[in-house]
Parts: sequence; C-alpha cells; structure tokens
Amino acid sequence: MVAFTELISYENDVFRAFVFWSTVLIVKTMFMSPLTGLQRFKNKSFANPEDSAMYKTKPKFDDPNVERVRRAHRNDLENIFPFVLIAFFYVLTNPQAWLAINLFRVAAIARIVHTVVYAVVVVPQPARALAFFVCLAVTLYMAFQTIVFFL
Amino acid sequence: MVAFTELISYENDVFRAFVFWSTVLIVKTMFMSPLTGLQRFKNKSFANPEDSAMYKTKPKFDDPNVERVRRAHRNDLENIFPFVLIAFFYVLTNPQAWLAINLFRVAAIARIVHTVVYAVVVVPQPARALAFFVCLAVTLYMAFQTIVFFL
Amino acid sequence: MVAFTELISYENDVFRAFVFWSTVLIVKTMFMSPLTGLQRFKNKSFANPEDSAMYKTKPKFDDPNVERVRRAHRNDLENIFPFVLIAFFYVLTNPQAWLAINLFRVAAIARIVHTVVYAVVVVPQPARALAFFVCLAVTLYMAFQTIVFFL
Repeated sequence: MVAFTELISYENDVFRAFVFWSTVLIVKTMFMSPLTGLQRFKNKSFANPEDSAMYKTKPKFDDPNVERVRRAHRNDLENIFPFVLIAFFYVLTNPQAWLAINLFRVAAIARIVHTVVYAVVVVPQPARALAFFVCLAVTLYMAFQTIVFFL
Repeated sequence: MVAFTELISYENDVFRAFVFWSTVLIVKTMFMSPLTGLQRFKNKSFANPEDSAMYKTKPKFDDPNVERVRRAHRNDLENIFPFVLIAFFYVLTNPQAWLAINLFRVAAIARIVHTVVYAVVVVPQPARALAFFVCLAVTLYMAFQTIVFFL
Repeated sequence: MVAFTELISYENDVFRAFVFWSTVLIVKTMFMSPLTGLQRFKNKSFANPEDSAMYKTKPKFDDPNVERVRRAHRNDLENIFPFVLIAFFYVLTNPQAWLAINLFRVAAIARIVHTVVYAVVVVPQPARALAFFVCLAVTLYMAFQTIVFFL
C-alpha cells in the first residue's frame, strides 16, 4: 500500500489536479455572491432594511432574478463542498491517475455549466439537470470507492 | 508528540473511522437533493419556471413537504460540514482511539436520526432537537480540544 | 521545495494558525444555530408545525429578526467553508509565515465583525459590506496563489 505521505504530495499528479479543480470550483462558488449583489442592485431588491434604505425601497424577498442566483449559489454549497471533501478522501485510495484526474475535470466542468445554464443564460431543461447529475454521479462514485477502501 | 504523518495514515484507526463516517454523512447530505426532487414532483411544486413549465404549473415556493426537506438539507450543510472539518483537526490532536471513534459514530448516527425524524417520518419534538444537539455537542467538544491543542 | 509533510505539521506556525482560526470561525458559524433558535422563541416564529404547536401558533417564515440571523448564518456557509478549504491549500504553497498568519487573523476578525454588525447589533452600511469583502479578498488572494502554485 502506498503511504498517504506519497499521495498528499506535490509529486502526485492526482493530488495536484484535486487541489487545482477544487480551488477553481470554490472560487466559482464565491463569485455567486457578487452575482447576487449585481442582481440586487439591478432589480433594487434588497433583503435588509439597512440596504434597501439606500434606494428608498422596502426589503424584497421575491425578485425572480435575485432568487434564481441564490438558488444556484445554494446548489453549489450542496454539491461543491461535498465534491471537494470526498475527492480529498478519494485521493487517499490511490486511484488510477488518468481516471481520477478526468473525473475531477468532468465534475468541475459540469458544475461550471450548471451555473451558466441556471444563473447566467437560462437554458431549458434537461441542461441543468444533466450538469447537476454529472457532478453528483462523480462524487457518489468517489464516495463509494472511499467507503470500500476505508471500511 | 506523535507526528501528523502517523495520524493521517491508514494505520491509524481514528483516521480511518473519521474518513468512513465523514463520507457516510456527506453521502447522506447529498441524498437530500433527490429527496427534494421527489417531493417537488409529487407535489408539482417547482421553483423555476423552466421546471414548472413541464407540468404547466406556476413556480411555487411554499409547499410544506418540499420546504421541510429543504430545511433538513440546509441543517445538514450547517452541521455536517463543520463536523467533518473539525473532526479532521481533532484527529491531529491524537485523541484516545475508543473515545474518538465512538464520538464519530454517535454524531453520525445522530445526524441520520435527525434526517429521519425531520424529513422522512415526522416525529414530535424533542426527537429532532435531541438528534441535533448530540452532533452539535460532539463537534463543539472536538473544537474545544482542537483549540486547546493548537493554541 | 518543502515537502508537504513539513507543512502539515505541528512545527509549522502557519499550519497551527490555520487550524486555530479555522476552528474559531467554524465554532462561530455553529453558534448561529442557537442564535436562530433564540430569535424563534423570542418572536414565537417557528418553521415547523411540530415546533409552533408548542406555542399554539402557526408556522411563520417571515419574522425579520429570525430571517436576519438565518441570512447571516447562510452568509457564513458561503464564505467560511471556502476560507477554510482554500486556506488549507494555501498552506501547501509554503507562504511567508508572517503574511499567511496575518491573513488568517484579518479574515477571521472580519467574519466575526460581519456577524456582529449583521445579526447582533445592526450597524448601518458599509460596515457589513466591508467586513464581507475583507474575508472574500483574503480567500481570493489565497486561491490565486494556490492556482498559480498547483497549475
């Protein structure tokens, strides 16, 4: 068995790919905050009285453009954090490099597509559902491998 | 002091238990997404116009069955991610194996019970409150040990 | 290049500071749950019928004091988990110790200030916006360094 010190290592291509794609996805998630802010300003739709006071409007919670971005953001929290945590464990199972690296790539691209078709340019279903299920499937596969390995 | 390389190791029973139970809980969290979807289809209650259009209904945000699962899901995000992150740090404090492993087990079972009594079969309080507080208490205990160790 | 085993180590001041401040912030996040509960009891505003039944009230979803704490809590999930995950990767880039440790401190204090001015004593803008952007900027800086290093 390969020691974890060799797996959590700059020399391990799988670990480097894991850190790279995880960071890309977390940065993507964080950009949902300014995107929400943009929609709030564009639609003068603020949740807090101290914010809406700047525009002399009342707090508003049902603007469809703001809520759409917030749902996309929440969907990121529900899927990207699990991906990052499970992928770290999966690296420790010493997976085949080409498989692991391509799983990270596919999952990351799927989540970026998910954001685009959900919150940037609304595309009819099943675009969003497919993008959602690709990352979910990758994460569940990695979780299965992790559970079998660490059982 | 035991080196972290010996603690983050397949040979360390505590680390293996940490990875196993963390993965179980994250998978449990991810299953809240299809459970929400199931309730959305059952109650024809969709948040996005491109989804509700399939059923020729209007977007709906107040279906009690859908919102219940979504609250349970959010509660997982609020509690399971902290558990996983703090438990990783706690492993580095080199805790007694039987204590650490049983804390992981108890917290994990409590969170599974929480989901069942919240979102599957609604059980009167204090079932949900108790399940909630068990994992919170375990996580705060581990956090306290971590802070003392790393201060 | 310094091996990761030397960076993920009790001897590394940066790693110790990372664990300490991450734990402080995660504990802070978890305290938003009891704070929400406090507001729910104070305002007799519960989301679940099995909870509101204790007070013979109907479920309520729009109490401004409860929703304010919930927004602050969600903002923590959106910012503190990314901070912790990215900071871990950033430690692996072997940053200058004084810079890294002060970045952790500044980000952590900013998030504590964010909670205070959002959910404890409401302070007019731009207090909350500034506190928000400080941690976001630190996390994005660390993410940038991580991506450059692991590319």
